Amino acid sequence: MPRLQAKVLDQMETKPKLVALDTMNFRMDSFMDDLKEVLKRIDVLIINDEEARQLANDYSLVKSARKIMEMGPSIVVIKKGEHGALLFNQQKEVFFAPALPLEEVFDPTGAGDSFAGGFIGYLSQQKEVTFDTMKRAVIYGSAMASFCVEKFGTEKLEKLSAIDVKNRVEEFINLTQLEIELTD
Amino acid sequence: MPRLQAKVLDQMETKPKLVALDTMNFRMDSFMDDLKEVLKRIDVLIINDEEARQLANDYSLVKSARKIMEMGPSIVVIKKGEHGALLFNQQKEVFFAPALPLEEVFDPTGAGDSFAGGFIGYLSQQKEVTFDTMKRAVIYGSAMASFCVEKFGTEKLEKLSAIDVKNRVEEFINLTQLEIELTD
Repeated sequence: MPRLQAKVLDQMETKPKLVALDTMNFRMDSFMDDLKEVLKRIDVLIINDEEARQLANDYSLVKSARKIMEMGPSIVVIKKGEHGALLFNQQKEVFFAPALPLEEVFDPTGAGDSFAGGFIGYLSQQKEVTFDTMKRAVIYGSAMASFCVEKFGTEKLEKLSAIDVKNRVEEFINLTQLEIELTD
Repeated sequence: MPRLQAKVLDQMETKPKLVALDTMNFRMDSFMDDLKEVLKRIDVLIINDEEARQLANDYSLVKSARKIMEMGPSIVVIKKGEHGALLFNQQKEVFFAPALPLEEVFDPTGAGDSFAGGFIGYLSQQKEVTFDTMKRAVIYGSAMASFCVEKFGTEKLEKLSAIDVKNRVEEFINLTQLEIELTD
């Protein structure tokens, strides 16, 4: 609930370096005013595509992200499920991380939360937060979500090693990277 | 029609270096046998996600691409509309090109054909065809499709300069590229 989220912030004795918030359609349907209040106090909003459209009242995700940034957050991450995730900042930079093309999706429950955990977990270990760090955080989030959907509940996530995560992140990066072009 | 496509190949006096084929659901509904014959004679199949599923009879795009490669083509490009495009080869390499997050999509008609034109047009100008060249071809295809949908019909495409194309391709590349990581 947005009011609970605000109360968590109220209890912080020192201002956090970075606050990320996840929300959902139910809170928008019934607690939009509270949600708008808490949005003013956060840095990153993580939200799915349909919710971004609902919050901004705009079909275009590019425009929605811009409208949401006017509500408070300086960074918006829009999750598109099996179609990847978009990262926007106020300098009009955009980054896109694909979802991994998996042979089978066993159970999508918890993918969004795994994404948020991977995203903020990666950032919490960085010395400074730049747009490039944010890009990598989106890839870590996507990697954790891809593990989540491969088994039921938290089964797969519980047994992961650091190497598993590193390899999956590399797989994600390879999916979109080009060889460096050499001029001849 | 698949038979017409086969006849085009029959008329070639020298074997082409590379043959790419685009098809659609209507041909699968009524001319699947003919289509399967022509698939044996081509190198690259360009197809959208729903059609790939129909042709391979599998919901997973990864498995569909693999099944389609068993039918003849050594490369499969699966177009996912506003969600980008996937490139598969028989060595199990995968590449993903996003669609550009546009503020407005004016008219999606012709996006698939613009993609195919950009893809094969780029390849036709390369000295050799590697997986990396194919990746770049997918990005050129995506760039041409992104221009196509911005105006009605061929309006936007007709007025493009080489610089416009170069800039758009760079925009696509920037969308997914990370800074090169420096070890410290």
